[in-house]
Order: sequence, then C-alpha cells, then structure tokens
Amino acid sequence: MSDLGDGFPESIRIREVGPRDGFQNEPEIIDTAHKIELIDLLTATGLERIEITSFVRPDVIPQLSDAHDVLAGIKRREGVSFSVLIPNNRGLEIALEQSDRFDETNFFLSASETHNMKNVNRSIEDSLSHLEDTIPKARDAGKRCEGVISTSFGCPYEGDVPRENVFAIAERLIASGCDEIGFGDTTGMANPVQVRRFFEEAMSRFGDVEVTAHFHDTRGQGLANVLSALAEGVESFESSFGELGGCVVPVGATGNIASEDLISMVGEMGIETGVDLPKLLEASARAQEILGRPLGSHVLKAGPVDWHRE
Amino acid sequence: MSDLGDGFPESIRIREVGPRDGFQNEPEIIDTAHKIELIDLLTATGLERIEITSFVRPDVIPQLSDAHDVLAGIKRREGVSFSVLIPNNRGLEIALEQSDRFDETNFFLSASETHNMKNVNRSIEDSLSHLEDTIPKARDAGKRCEGVISTSFGCPYEGDVPRENVFAIAERLIASGCDEIGFGDTTGMANPVQVRRFFEEAMSRFGDVEVTAHFHDTRGQGLANVLSALAEGVESFESSFGELGGCVVPVGATGNIASEDLISMVGEMGIETGVDLPKLLEASARAQEILGRPLGSHVLKAGPVDWHRE
Repeated sequence: MSDLGDGFPESIRIREVGPRDGFQNEPEIIDTAHKIELIDLLTATGLERIEITSFVRPDVIPQLSDAHDVLAGIKRREGVSFSVLIPNNRGLEIALEQSDRFDETNFFLSASETHNMKNVNRSIEDSLSHLEDTIPKARDAGKRCEGVISTSFGCPYEGDVPRENVFAIAERLIASGCDEIGFGDTTGMANPVQVRRFFEEAMSRFGDVEVTAHFHDTRGQGLANVLSALAEGVESFESSFGELGGCVVPVGATGNIASEDLISMVGEMGIETGVDLPKLLEASARAQEILGRPLGSHVLKAGPVDWHRE
Repeated sequence: MSDLGDGFPESIRIREVGPRDGFQNEPEIIDTAHKIELIDLLTATGLERIEITSFVRPDVIPQLSDAHDVLAGIKRREGVSFSVLIPNNRGLEIALEQSDRFDETNFFLSASETHNMKNVNRSIEDSLSHLEDTIPKARDAGKRCEGVISTSFGCPYEGDVPRENVFAIAERLIASGCDEIGFGDTTGMANPVQVRRFFEEAMSRFGDVEVTAHFHDTRGQGLANVLSALAEGVESFESSFGELGGCVVPVGATGNIASEDLISMVGEMGIETGVDLPKLLEASARAQEILGRPLGSHVLKAGPVDWHRE
C-alpha cells in the first residue's frame, strides 16, 4: 500500500486572501469600517498570513480604493504577517508610504497569454519585465515577495497550460527576488492527478523558495486538490474565509476554497494550522451578515465536525 | 514518492441515488410524470446503476408513495441496473409484484445506535435480525442485494463510530446474502486519512463482495474522500445528480456528492465511468427547472472543464 498519509506535513501555513481577493470580487462597495472589523476578526483567529488589500488604481478597482485607510485602520498583531498586492511601480511607491503597516508584497501574472492579456492588458513577457523591475524595489524596501502565477493548471480561454511555461515564469520571478511562488488554479480546472505531478516537479525544482498552492472549488475539487498537494509535501496554501472571491467565471460558480473548509479538513486529518476554527467561523458569519447573503463555505453552513459530538 | 496515481482503478461504477435519496429529501411532492422524465434522462446518460425509489409506507414518506407508478412508467434500457430500497418484508412483497421492473434491492441500517433509533426506531440488533430475514427472500426472488451502512464514518449524535462495529455489521449483512456493502458518510464527517485507513481494511476484509463508498459533501470534503477511497482501490461509488438529497443535517448543509462533480473529477484524472457528462448535466438542469431552485452541483454551475477549452 502507498499510504497517502505517509507524505503529509505535520503542519501547514495558510494565507487568508479574503480581504483582497474576496472583497475585490464583491459587486457592492463594502464600508471601510466593515473591512477593518472583519480583518481584525481574522487577525485574532491564529491565521499567520493575511492579504489585506491591493494598491491598484481606484478607477480600475473602486472596491479597493480605500487601501490606505484599511491598512491604517487595522490592528497589528505579533506573529501575523500582512501582505498587499502590488500591480506596478506606482502601486509599490504608494504602498511604501505606509511601509510599517505591512510585511509582504504579492505580485501576479498569468501563465496563459490570453488570460494575462484580458486581465492586465499585457503580454506575459511585458508583465515579467515590469515585475523584474518592481520586485527588487520591494525587496530593497525590506519586503518579503510572493509571485503568484494565475492559470497555472489550465486557462478558460486556451485550455491546457504547459507546466514548463509555468515553471519558466516561476524561475524568472525567483531570479527577481521572490521568496515564495504561488501557483493558482484560477478557474478551478486542476485535477488531483495533474496536481500531484505538478507539485512533485515544483517541490524538487523550487526547493529554495516557498511553494504555495492556491486552489478554487469551482468544480468541487478544491479540497481533493489540496489532498494531492499535501501528499507531495506542499506546506503553504491560500484560501478565503466564507469562500469569498476568486475568479468567478462563469457567473454563479464558486471561487477560492473556503479557509474554514480547508482548516476543518486538515485539522481532522491531524495537520496543524494554528487557527481557532470557531473564531474563524465567527469572522465568516459576520461577513455573511455584512454582505447580507449566504456565503458558500461548507463548514459555515454545517458547523465543524466536533460541534456535532455532543 | 508514494504516487497517489499508482493505486487508482482504471474505471469505476457509479450508482445514481438521486431518484430515491434525492427526491425523498425534497419538501414539495414532485409529480410522478416529472420523476419518470428525470429517471429516463438519467437512464440515457450511460449510468450503469440507478436507485429508483423505495417501498416504504406512504404515510411515512409521502414523496415516495408513487413507487409503483414510477417503476411501471420508466423505460428500461439494456445495461442499466435499477434498484429499489427495501425497508422490511412487507416492502419487499410489494416490490416483488413488479419484479420484472428492477434488478437490485438495497437494505440499510446505521452503525450508530442513536442514529438507527432516530431513523428507524429500532436497535441495531433488531434491524439486523429483520434484515437477516428479508435479504435471503430478496435473493430467492433473484435480486442482487446491497447492504448500506449509514454513519460508517461518524455519527452526529454519538461522534466517533468504531470501525470494528461497522465491519461487524458488514459481516452479518454479507452472511445474509449481500453481494455489495455500501459504507455511508451520512452527515459528512469523514476525513481523507480516516477514509484511507477504513478502506484499506475494508478492501482486504471484504474482498469477496463489492465494496461501495457513499460520501457527502457536507463540509466540502466529499471529493477529497473519494480520492482517498480511489487510492485504496475502491471502484464503486454512490452519488446524486444535481447534488440532490442526502441527510441534510443541519438545515442548509449539502448532502450527497453531485454525480457530475464526481464524474468530472475522475474523468479529468483519466478514470472511466461510461457516463456522458453533458447528458447528465441536461438531466440535472431539468431537475433544477422542475424543482424551481438552483441545485448545489458545482459542475452544473461552472460547466465541465473542457467546455472552456474552445
């Protein structure tokens, strides 16, 4: 027997991306005070990493035009690392005016030309050239850098994305100074066999930096893909409280895996996350209240397994 | 590396349980003509096994009081095996009046005393004694017999259910004449490590009969648990089109894994099911129309992966 359990890590690190990725995808503008309230709730759960906001142009993403005020207003807490998404040099300059309010910078591009063009109106090469200029500046400012590669497991426009293309981009990002590479299944096209092969190669090839998996539950396979990544020794994951956000294509489909679903599953498997699940569920329940609609998170609906053990 | 891919079967068999398990859990009575229409759509998808209805007392489950008419009205198709759920001797007698309309009989009980008591108002021993009387009668009538054990991976009232208790029940059912044992995660409490250990033992202990896994997506772990079962060589699964049904506890939680989510995942992994996914999605879309509400199935919302590969 090849025991799937043998290869599992004892603990994993989770980056909560709801405040940026989740809020960004909300159609109605959320009050800045509500964003701060929710982030403060998340900061108290034991989550080690939270992506707070993005310094994009306000006319491009009005929802995140309060980036400065959110960053200024949230409580800092020992042991919790805050990150901001940086689209370009101008965004980095503005972010660095509040340099003491965050620790990490996230940079992104797509591994598929069509998706990158539709998303940021640039070729992959053009995006990479810009990032190769920006990332070193972030490092010089003392920030840890994560490079996130979207559509790493498939593109809704192009179909298959060759693994070699994804890894070539990762190498450029690492050479520019990234300490961590996140591989994103942006529209939920990954399957567990593909994930297994992908991370088998990624873990051996990028052993010097942190390798992070970012899955979506678009087709219900999110946690199965997590299981495959765990079996390859991946120890870093991104997820979103309440199942907020993600690239919701097509309309009505779900996006990111829910942080509470991820934490519930790995917790039941005996893998540590450091997160207090009931506290996280309070944050998701509050988000549900603020947004005024039921969120997609399974554990938020059903309750954790041990709540039923009376 | 312990390659998760090594142990996967080349093909799996799926029993579609929506027409019984799914319809039974619908609050509004569905027209018999609509049930027949949906079952006929399912029969044309390539599904090998469909659970059609249950011969329970009409006052206990009014939704299935049209069992006779449904069974009489649906089209039979070469290669598609129909099953009916049998609660007791009286139910079997009534079912056998239409013996030419179905092939298999399903019998069930819970592995937890409290759940069994709440579900059928009997002790486990009492349920087993009755089944040991009924199952041989079904076999004598030429029917293949499946014994389904609910709460095999945990009970919402009792918590952990010792594996040994579940397996002892399975042995009694096999001794009575069951050709197949289904292990049900009735309220979605299973996790992938538990599932792995469970089926490692079940597959070696019950090698002479068919071992079937029945998972729920209550906490988003349904397909991760499928992946674990596949890694142990399980080749038979139960699921429900549209994500209908399942023991929806608490209210708002999801139940059975969706057949289309299961078929999409294993199909992408290269495992054969014989099911035409677009046809199955037509059946689920029609169910959505008839029931007048969006169903939980992920692939129904998002479309199959290859629909995006233009």
